[in-house]
Amino acid sequence: MTTTLITNIGELVTNDPEAEDLLGLVQDAALVVEGSRIAWTGRAADAPDADERVDLGGRAVVPGFVDSHSHLVFAGDRAQEFAARMAGTPYAAGGIRTTVAATRAATDEQLTSHVARLVEEMRRQGTTTVEIKSGYGLTVKDEARSLAVARQFTEETTYLGAHVVPDGDPGEYVDLVTGPMLDAAREHARWIDVFCERGAFDADQARAILGAGAGAGLRGRLHANQLGYGDGVRLAAELGLLAVDHCTYLADEDVDALRDSGTIATLLPGVEFSTRQPYPDARRLIDAGVRVAIASDCNPGSCFTSSVPLCIALAVREMGMTPAEAVHAATYRGAEALDRDDVGALVVGRRADLAVLDAPTHVHLAYRPGVPLVVQTWIAGRPG
Amino acid sequence: MTTTLITNIGELVTNDPEAEDLLGLVQDAALVVEGSRIAWTGRAADAPDADERVDLGGRAVVPGFVDSHSHLVFAGDRAQEFAARMAGTPYAAGGIRTTVAATRAATDEQLTSHVARLVEEMRRQGTTTVEIKSGYGLTVKDEARSLAVARQFTEETTYLGAHVVPDGDPGEYVDLVTGPMLDAAREHARWIDVFCERGAFDADQARAILGAGAGAGLRGRLHANQLGYGDGVRLAAELGLLAVDHCTYLADEDVDALRDSGTIATLLPGVEFSTRQPYPDARRLIDAGVRVAIASDCNPGSCFTSSVPLCIALAVREMGMTPAEAVHAATYRGAEALDRDDVGALVVGRRADLAVLDAPTHVHLAYRPGVPLVVQTWIAGRPG
Repeated sequence: MTTTLITNIGELVTNDPEAEDLLGLVQDAALVVEGSRIAWTGRAADAPDADERVDLGGRAVVPGFVDSHSHLVFAGDRAQEFAARMAGTPYAAGGIRTTVAATRAATDEQLTSHVARLVEEMRRQGTTTVEIKSGYGLTVKDEARSLAVARQFTEETTYLGAHVVPDGDPGEYVDLVTGPMLDAAREHARWIDVFCERGAFDADQARAILGAGAGAGLRGRLHANQLGYGDGVRLAAELGLLAVDHCTYLADEDVDALRDSGTIATLLPGVEFSTRQPYPDARRLIDAGVRVAIASDCNPGSCFTSSVPLCIALAVREMGMTPAEAVHAATYRGAEALDRDDVGALVVGRRADLAVLDAPTHVHLAYRPGVPLVVQTWIAGRPG
Repeated sequence: MTTTLITNIGELVTNDPEAEDLLGLVQDAALVVEGSRIAWTGRAADAPDADERVDLGGRAVVPGFVDSHSHLVFAGDRAQEFAARMAGTPYAAGGIRTTVAATRAATDEQLTSHVARLVEEMRRQGTTTVEIKSGYGLTVKDEARSLAVARQFTEETTYLGAHVVPDGDPGEYVDLVTGPMLDAAREHARWIDVFCERGAFDADQARAILGAGAGAGLRGRLHANQLGYGDGVRLAAELGLLAVDHCTYLADEDVDALRDSGTIATLLPGVEFSTRQPYPDARRLIDAGVRVAIASDCNPGSCFTSSVPLCIALAVREMGMTPAEAVHAATYRGAEALDRDDVGALVVGRRADLAVLDAPTHVHLAYRPGVPLVVQTWIAGRPG
């Protein structure tokens, strides 16, 4: 296999779990890519020879972002709903139905080309792994095709038939979600998720849906405690889920439950930015010993950003994270939240997924908010 | 002169002051560029022939951003100060001295190449006119060379010898700023500015400095009321300045003074983002009849963003502006704040400075925060 030496890296974020510092920083660094994998990392002065050589001129390199929460399969947009919200209309989950109607009306080709565009937009901003949910189909056929579209772009597909009750009786809809819809979705999905919130699904319904999913071989995730206090986070901890997402409104017992279960809290600060809600308190969670990931939640309703760098800047400005914690949360913790040990760190054997920054250090991702600092993204050893 | 038809524009923001709506929106639009100027705008179906034709595929076009407040001439960065501030150290104007030392130590070539890089970074984000201040030299020689460097990139150069007192007696420093330093700076500058704030210069000193500047042919600007209440905004109104910048802490009488004088309030929300200060209240100002511009304040200390799109998103999220008001403030009002009637609007006779968005409408600049939506920037009729 061809080897490539990437050298003159001003600062390399390895996320090596064996390092003394959180990010496993190496100054004046280099790394060697062999095929799709990392074969060596260290000081540039100590680097071995390779077939090819790339000089980064002192730029920083971070692991590619692992965006563990997105809703990219949809049609239409909700720019006018956004503008109305900014003028004072409160955010409500019911707006999802607008996107459901547009998504059902779209062709497979339209959905696929829209996802392709957003995945490419993410890649340009440094994202190398993305989880994609269904949830704007909400019929057997439309959930299955949403997941089939998503699967063309990622292994991390999540069945979210339980996004909102589209119409009719909630109990009958749960029967559909746990029955024929699950049967049609399972072959295209790795995960199953529920929006557990007032106005969507309650904890008993979520438990039933995740249970049915587990029976079909799908691992559970949960949207919880976004819009108010509730039982969702404690349910996630009780079920031993790998991650529970949003976590904006947490009682002390929720934090304790997350710490005790080891469930990752995935925070989505772009949502609070775009809905003008209070931000979750990452500092409180980290200080309590809870693992925190951050992700984009890219979706047309509550948060139409695809920018993990913006989420990092918001995590620092608004959620009390240090720049190092925020970068780690968007890479290493994101990989953990997807149970992936092949991405999220630049250590020997992992996939060579990385973002080159037009900046000397990772701190600039928070210090220079909004600036498109990612100048090149490599996935599986290949620059894009 | 060659004419170019730019057509299939999904939404065109003209900022035509004769239009009924603030942005002078035209749907399914086109425009014709002749040389460096706009020769025609209207519905694509009505467009005249031209020598060349560019099809934008339904994308939105906005006037290029007019960033009326930046400090691009400096060396070094202050990423560690930023990280410390985010961990709880309050922002103080004294940090400017760190950059002064680095700037004095830099060569002309280093300063020039650094400004070139930032101006190009701005252009990639849609900025077509930028004001650039001195203020990190603070000696006769270093202020003059800072302005000479800035003048290579813009006509809108501002002498800010009165950024902070570098050392020694404040009275003696004001004598220097109004005497030999002004003499050396005037040939390279159009404007003169003072940081009127506790810890920098008081209103009497600001009055003296702006008066001396006026005597040398430089028009006045002012940084005021950023860190606390004070006399600066009322001084700006009393002197009839075109614009006063920051305006975070305003008493009712300050707002009244701005309304009565017609002085533009230039708000810089990137600063509040990066210093974790409260945001200025644009809604209050607009509702009182004050003209509001927004700008980046790109500088290494309080705000190292060059992104006007981020400032637009912050203006909507944090300052109560509508997306239309924010886009207008970053284009038309920015031009007014620099007394420029040749930029800031896409109407016949003005310079063909525009940004093409990978989005159907201007609302997406706020709806999709952090996403690099500007796919092409034209300056004086030429794409870059």
